[in-house]
Amino acid sequence: MKSSLKKGPEASVKSKRHAKPLRRSSRADQQIGSRRVAKANGVVAGVDIGGSNLRIALADLQGNVLGRWNTSTKATSSPDMVMGQIEQGIHYLLSQMPSSHRSVSSVAVGAPGVTDHRAGVVLATSYLKGWKNVPLRQLLESTLGVHAAVENDVRMAALGEHWMGAARGVDDFVFLAIGTGIAAGVFANGKLIHGSNWTAGEVGYMHVPHAREEPAKPGQPGALESMIGGDGIRRQWSSACVDHETSQNFNATEIFARAGNGDPLAKQILEHTAQFLAYAVYNISLVLNSSLFILGGGVGVSIPLRDATNRILERYNEPSRPKLVISNLGTDAQMMGAIRLALTTAKQRITSRV
Amino acid sequence: MKSSLKKGPEASVKSKRHAKPLRRSSRADQQIGSRRVAKANGVVAGVDIGGSNLRIALADLQGNVLGRWNTSTKATSSPDMVMGQIEQGIHYLLSQMPSSHRSVSSVAVGAPGVTDHRAGVVLATSYLKGWKNVPLRQLLESTLGVHAAVENDVRMAALGEHWMGAARGVDDFVFLAIGTGIAAGVFANGKLIHGSNWTAGEVGYMHVPHAREEPAKPGQPGALESMIGGDGIRRQWSSACVDHETSQNFNATEIFARAGNGDPLAKQILEHTAQFLAYAVYNISLVLNSSLFILGGGVGVSIPLRDATNRILERYNEPSRPKLVISNLGTDAQMMGAIRLALTTAKQRITSRV
Repeated sequence: MKSSLKKGPEASVKSKRHAKPLRRSSRADQQIGSRRVAKANGVVAGVDIGGSNLRIALADLQGNVLGRWNTSTKATSSPDMVMGQIEQGIHYLLSQMPSSHRSVSSVAVGAPGVTDHRAGVVLATSYLKGWKNVPLRQLLESTLGVHAAVENDVRMAALGEHWMGAARGVDDFVFLAIGTGIAAGVFANGKLIHGSNWTAGEVGYMHVPHAREEPAKPGQPGALESMIGGDGIRRQWSSACVDHETSQNFNATEIFARAGNGDPLAKQILEHTAQFLAYAVYNISLVLNSSLFILGGGVGVSIPLRDATNRILERYNEPSRPKLVISNLGTDAQMMGAIRLALTTAKQRITSRV
Repeated sequence: MKSSLKKGPEASVKSKRHAKPLRRSSRADQQIGSRRVAKANGVVAGVDIGGSNLRIALADLQGNVLGRWNTSTKATSSPDMVMGQIEQGIHYLLSQMPSSHRSVSSVAVGAPGVTDHRAGVVLATSYLKGWKNVPLRQLLESTLGVHAAVENDVRMAALGEHWMGAARGVDDFVFLAIGTGIAAGVFANGKLIHGSNWTAGEVGYMHVPHAREEPAKPGQPGALESMIGGDGIRRQWSSACVDHETSQNFNATEIFARAGNGDPLAKQILEHTAQFLAYAVYNISLVLNSSLFILGGGVGVSIPLRDATNRILERYNEPSRPKLVISNLGTDAQMMGAIRLALTTAKQRITSRV
């Protein structure tokens, strides 16, 4: 396995595709076949493909994280390159494990785009130079030789929060990721909602008072996203900054921190953002009656934003007031969800074999 | 059973509570216990309690409707009075059946308010003079002596449309009831969503562009409902009618029909209503990615409204365009849903016995 540690991911993919599988031999299969997975010494791999970073963690079959690895995806675009990075990371992590843990049972990957979870296909992404219809599960299975599952990254984060984050034991909740884009991972009746075209939770397009009224054109940010996504907030700041003494180059988190320190312009932008967010959270809660909204993403985890939004929501009591908290797992949410899905995948494969 | 046909429902309740059960003796129980329900000759009862009417249908265990009965609820308010009407109707219908069908396996009742389906309790209604925490399932079981289930009426209509209406075979859809009030019955992953306080689908409170921005006070109509609920539409008409030659007393359906005949004021109100409805449908579809919206209720089943709204929605393609149709079952939707739930209840009770 040492050869997998070499630096060139593309070369690595080409040489290793259909090569040595990560799952060990007939002995591991026998262990799976005899329902001994809970006691077996194999591992699962959880992968989070982001627009900036690719993170991998290996966990044992009880879900304990054994090792982590990450790399930049800024220069990465093709599925082959990403596959090479995943393979490189998993092989590196395996090489650090004791020999009893060097067999991978399954891998699950969160992808930043519309993902057909059932077919295992990434239908479209706005990151990674726009993947279209990439059969990611099949690529993973043929490259790595293990069972694989894929899911949209925001839904993966919701899975993570449900498993061991802020939504533990909660069957109806919404994970709301606010960064450059806005999307929701929705749990109802204890299960993820995907919708009929795998686009449930695309709430960045929502129409609320004082946001854009026209429908979005293809590639254009949605009405809500253009107001409270990272770019929208920065744009509000810099356009208002023409008459303002301070720097025009703050990001959303910095602007909200300035609001906390009393900057009147920053406070105004924070209040506007919180009002838009409150409308969106309230509208979503009317549909689902979710008791809990978990904020994630670069903009979403801002404490001043959470507090300002909760203050507004205190007035929205009919029929019931949604509660807003910040993600427990932070940037780990997607990866923990991926570990959870990998564990479920491993178990499902066992059930289908025996 | 003849005594149950007498007219005074209150008297009937008092005399019959805990009296002769509707389910037959040990023979019927044995049939249930031996999984022979599909072949048994019993019936189930589906009941729709509305603000104006109470409808009952009996169906055989294959779901074929065998008889219908209805009465006014305008002078009815207390749970005891409603229970008396239900008992009266079922006894009347039973008396019309051949003797092989005079045993009721289960009853399911749709209630016009927030309903805890699990506990079988109607938590609150705005009709029927405001029921609070009425243990309807328990009342039904003790009065009628049969297994019972209760559900919110709009969710019951969604169940009906899923079973044998416009949503047959569709796992992700929304039944949108627009009458005096507005509410949605939401199916996702093939199951009804109830939410954490049984208020999923209360979309009449939704905040969309140009509707009221302030949160609703208790008892006040929601922002969306005050624009496109029946009263809101009538109010728009009559306030605009001050300078208009025609009558001020049209209801929403009549106003929309006038729009179809070219009345410019009616056309304007229809277009406004359609734009609000389009915002709401689009916002809901972003959360759920439902492929199908089924319009029901007195205002919702208007063909001019459906057509005007679909014309607006044609411009909303990102991420996917919701499709709007009118209920197949019309005013029967709730009752058909109740029959479906009664059949499920009968089957579940069998499973829990054997």
